[in-house]
Amino acid sequence: MFKKILIANRGEIALRVIRTAREMGIQTVVVYSTADEKSLPVLLADESVCVGPPTSNQSYLNIPNILSAALMTGAEAIHPGYGFLSENPEFARMCREHGIVFIGPTPENMDDLGSKANGRAVAAAANVPVVPGTGILDTVEDALAAAKQIGYPVLLKASAGGGGRGQKVIHTQDELAKGFAQAQEEARLYFSDPAVIMEKFLTEFRHVEVQVVGDGKGHVIHVGERDCSIQRRNQKLIEEAPSTLPESLRQELLDAGVRLASSINYTGAGTLEFIMDRDGNYYFMEMNTRIQVEHCVSEMISQLDLVRLQIEVAAGEGLKLRQEDVKLHGHAIECRLNAEDPDKDFRPAAGKIDEVHFAGGPGVRVDTHVYSGYSIPPHYDSLIGKLIVWDENRDRAIERMKRALSETVIQGPKTTIPLYIKIMDNPFYRRGAVMTNFLKTRMDM
Amino acid sequence: MFKKILIANRGEIALRVIRTAREMGIQTVVVYSTADEKSLPVLLADESVCVGPPTSNQSYLNIPNILSAALMTGAEAIHPGYGFLSENPEFARMCREHGIVFIGPTPENMDDLGSKANGRAVAAAANVPVVPGTGILDTVEDALAAAKQIGYPVLLKASAGGGGRGQKVIHTQDELAKGFAQAQEEARLYFSDPAVIMEKFLTEFRHVEVQVVGDGKGHVIHVGERDCSIQRRNQKLIEEAPSTLPESLRQELLDAGVRLASSINYTGAGTLEFIMDRDGNYYFMEMNTRIQVEHCVSEMISQLDLVRLQIEVAAGEGLKLRQEDVKLHGHAIECRLNAEDPDKDFRPAAGKIDEVHFAGGPGVRVDTHVYSGYSIPPHYDSLIGKLIVWDENRDRAIERMKRALSETVIQGPKTTIPLYIKIMDNPFYRRGAVMTNFLKTRMDM
Repeated sequence: MFKKILIANRGEIALRVIRTAREMGIQTVVVYSTADEKSLPVLLADESVCVGPPTSNQSYLNIPNILSAALMTGAEAIHPGYGFLSENPEFARMCREHGIVFIGPTPENMDDLGSKANGRAVAAAANVPVVPGTGILDTVEDALAAAKQIGYPVLLKASAGGGGRGQKVIHTQDELAKGFAQAQEEARLYFSDPAVIMEKFLTEFRHVEVQVVGDGKGHVIHVGERDCSIQRRNQKLIEEAPSTLPESLRQELLDAGVRLASSINYTGAGTLEFIMDRDGNYYFMEMNTRIQVEHCVSEMISQLDLVRLQIEVAAGEGLKLRQEDVKLHGHAIECRLNAEDPDKDFRPAAGKIDEVHFAGGPGVRVDTHVYSGYSIPPHYDSLIGKLIVWDENRDRAIERMKRALSETVIQGPKTTIPLYIKIMDNPFYRRGAVMTNFLKTRMDM
Repeated sequence: MFKKILIANRGEIALRVIRTAREMGIQTVVVYSTADEKSLPVLLADESVCVGPPTSNQSYLNIPNILSAALMTGAEAIHPGYGFLSENPEFARMCREHGIVFIGPTPENMDDLGSKANGRAVAAAANVPVVPGTGILDTVEDALAAAKQIGYPVLLKASAGGGGRGQKVIHTQDELAKGFAQAQEEARLYFSDPAVIMEKFLTEFRHVEVQVVGDGKGHVIHVGERDCSIQRRNQKLIEEAPSTLPESLRQELLDAGVRLASSINYTGAGTLEFIMDRDGNYYFMEMNTRIQVEHCVSEMISQLDLVRLQIEVAAGEGLKLRQEDVKLHGHAIECRLNAEDPDKDFRPAAGKIDEVHFAGGPGVRVDTHVYSGYSIPPHYDSLIGKLIVWDENRDRAIERMKRALSETVIQGPKTTIPLYIKIMDNPFYRRGAVMTNFLKTRMDM
């Protein structure tokens, strides 16, 4: 097992990795930008190295500085968390070249599945349905021809994008003609790759995803699925496990996820994202080749530590778990506590947190990097913590979440907590009838 | 189900009951003394009623005021928590007389088992071994004769005592002659009952206890056992579930607990405390006819909510769980976070908590009533919270507890946290070789 790992991330996920590493007896080095000097991961890691100024390109995306930090501190492996460099095959290759283990899939896995264009091809080969759509579109003419065949509305997606970012809905030929070059430019800007694909835009669907872990030798297990349909601007707000799908459909989806990941000898933890219409037709969207924000709900129903599994697989210890060892029990819900004002279109609310008090008691888990007096830097996302609950069944988990939300006090910035309390009482939410347009159609937002 | 219950307690256990009640859709009324006006339970309950000044006799033990508060607010039931009135059969009778449900055993159960003298008789009748000892001793002459037969050292115990309080070790005839009347006087003072019994004093033993829940009609289940051997002055500091006993002995102990509780048609949650010598001989000590501080470790390994079971049984919903429904999995450890200075003989350290930050992440549960800026009143016990962890097995739970302790920040009073970090690394603790004299023999305290 590794003696020391470097964490190339910030916020709650950096702390999440520190926690498991510490329990495994592994020393941790965390890198940070000058804006994060007083963050909890920096205070709690065994070592910390400043890698640049607040702008991500100069710090959390600064590959030379991060690799230097690893070499300098003698870290044998790098955990990339989510976002930043976590899905960058170039970074994974450079780690390999420098003799540092990248805790995640192989660069080849990422090539196969990390981009949306390749992901569609791999899925089709594994007999997993994909949304009607295209490979990479080079010209606006190609795009117009494809859209004509698929039918409007269509979705333009950055092939290298992820986490719902880099997507644009196109309703008309005119919009497409005007917007295509801009979509390429945005893709280049955000993901360093201008490649854009097109998919049929489904207006009403659920987002359901399958958590898998693979050993890189063809052995892949799933750790159930998650429903992440409650979103704002394609960003997830509330996730739960299991989904409310009928059992046979659930099983079909899980099988599809395992089949797809097995087909490329997937290594480590990953998530296969599907969308599903009202009739139960499901389509593979993309694979996130990393740990996800919402991994905690899967941990709660499986009592597994997914970060530990990532580290064990990366260290060459293989994956001892067989599918029948994974026992899923009860229901878990996660609310992403964001410093945002839901009444003002989720405008980020950076600034100082004067006082913070999180919920506790039975079945409650809190993952957060903030503390009383902490100032949220304006440079990064607005996630200030995750409130996760578990209970025997969905109804009880909802009651527990309401209780936990009502106990949570965050003084200073506006947060999404009041919105979540309302959602927990929404009759459509309570009966599990949730599509990704939930906030608009059921909450008038 | 009840619409409203009153909680006749304070601190973390009052909050614990509020949490479950809220999840069950039950309104809560909490009573408080003037010293607890700004405590979290008071802030979080639906209603609160001040029942007197800080001195317990005038507030938390003030039966007329508490019953008035229940009648005035329309509470249908009273949860007594632990300590205070929780094991007072007189209080349970008065609740009954006023048409208020006492959430706990019947007064008859308490008569049978609440006092140590009766408990010994009931255990013997149920064929459960008791420590060699006596019934109530009236005179010093009786005591001297009994001690002669049992052999010194002996233990004098307040028959109405509990939680390790009201005990005195006697080494010689002379000590007994001098100390007997004083033991009676102390028993009268602390437990309003001068009755004293005598037991053989075992110098080296484990404290292992069985958690049971009964429906009052003879159906009793166990929720595993707990090892609570790490103590200071007979007060538990660290508890864990399951114990490290060999499986056959574990099962024998669990059977004995269920047999004893069934024999009196026990109602609600209760704990049968046993001591066990190095050879695996075990003796019933006493039954605590209430929820216990350390119930959380049993909740963690069973994923049950014991307070919910208490409320359901009290509301006449019976106990649907059969023994085979209780699935115990993994290992849980609880550290009682006390505001005390372990280096100064655990002297209580009341005062203001300037800053508090509790651990989070996977497998961590925090039950606390304190917050940043809270002042610990000097009138009650020094428990400021409980840190509980769960993991797959004991070794991993210990690593997780170390990690969680290292994340916890309590600025202001001295606490027992530094001691617990040392204990987690103690080789005797790690191999589970722990007797109640652990602090003295293994930690030089």
